[in-house]
Amino acid sequence: MTTQAARTPQQDRSRATRRRLLEAAVECLAELGWNGSTVAVVAERAGVTRGAAQHHFPTREDLFTAAVEYVTDERLAAVRADTETLPPPGEARTEAVVELIVRLYTGPLFRAALHLWVAAATEQALRERIVALENHLGREAHRAAVEFLGADESHPGARETVQATLDLARGLGLANLLTDDGPRRARVVRQWARTLDAVLIT
Amino acid sequence: MTTQAARTPQQDRSRATRRRLLEAAVECLAELGWNGSTVAVVAERAGVTRGAAQHHFPTREDLFTAAVEYVTDERLAAVRADTETLPPPGEARTEAVVELIVRLYTGPLFRAALHLWVAAATEQALRERIVALENHLGREAHRAAVEFLGADESHPGARETVQATLDLARGLGLANLLTDDGPRRARVVRQWARTLDAVLIT
Repeated sequence: MTTQAARTPQQDRSRATRRRLLEAAVECLAELGWNGSTVAVVAERAGVTRGAAQHHFPTREDLFTAAVEYVTDERLAAVRADTETLPPPGEARTEAVVELIVRLYTGPLFRAALHLWVAAATEQALRERIVALENHLGREAHRAAVEFLGADESHPGARETVQATLDLARGLGLANLLTDDGPRRARVVRQWARTLDAVLIT
Repeated sequence: MTTQAARTPQQDRSRATRRRLLEAAVECLAELGWNGSTVAVVAERAGVTRGAAQHHFPTREDLFTAAVEYVTDERLAAVRADTETLPPPGEARTEAVVELIVRLYTGPLFRAALHLWVAAATEQALRERIVALENHLGREAHRAAVEFLGADESHPGARETVQATLDLARGLGLANLLTDDGPRRARVVRQWARTLDAVLIT
């Protein structure tokens, strides 16, 4: 680690620190919620001094907003890479794609985002930034879903059906917050994939 | 008010106080979130002394858990009464029913429940009670949705499609937390009603 750090230029090291902070911030939010997630807690988890954390992210709001944005972009890119290994268009692919989308909404990232969104509902300092982030992530998620499902949005109802898929995924994420909703979710996902095939494949 | 109170037996007055506390608790949670919602704040809004509030609900957890349960039961009963004025089975009815269900998840009650659920994710004193409440409300909401939609759950896929409708409603509620998502939601609901008709009406 020390040798590697010595070899790495200042800029790379700074970027690596930033990434560690962002990943640790999402983990903290997911586990401890907004109240328990301070810059100090995140810095400690990332193995970074509090001063260094504050150099990268002057405020708590900066850190957590950037963290959810960064990890979502990372996860979407990973799902995009995964879709290359999926079966060809047809029922099996649709179900696999719905599973991939729903998985995005049932892990620690969704949990972290949920804590942040709910905090933003009552904290003015967060609200404006989260509304902007929600717009950005909503557009990205929609674009990705259209692409993964191979949906033709010029077909009547296709656009709304893709949106419903994301709304459904969000609802499934919420149902998974306090208990493991996996078995029920698997049945809902399977049936939804069949419905999607009927609406989207024409 | 004083005259009426003088005429009311002790028991009725106590029940009215309890109801005022429960309604005020949901309003507080929806507006101020879990952090801002104390027994004292609720008692003040309900026009009740803090001692009286504590007589009815010994702990903060008692008050807010009972409040979300009570108001949900009330709202479900109100929706049940509304369904008698709906059009006969068919496309128009399905859309009206989906609108009624979704409305349950996009108002102050859902917002209050969301704050409570998210607090329960990190507060041990709440968690167990909210898991029990979630089971109870989940069953009630499912039963109501089956009844309102006139779904025959012996049909393959019907049960999962009704569940998906509630998951979708939950996701739409979340999308409405920070901004007014009404116009988009109306389009998703309309398309969802068409999908439901195709799956449920056989």
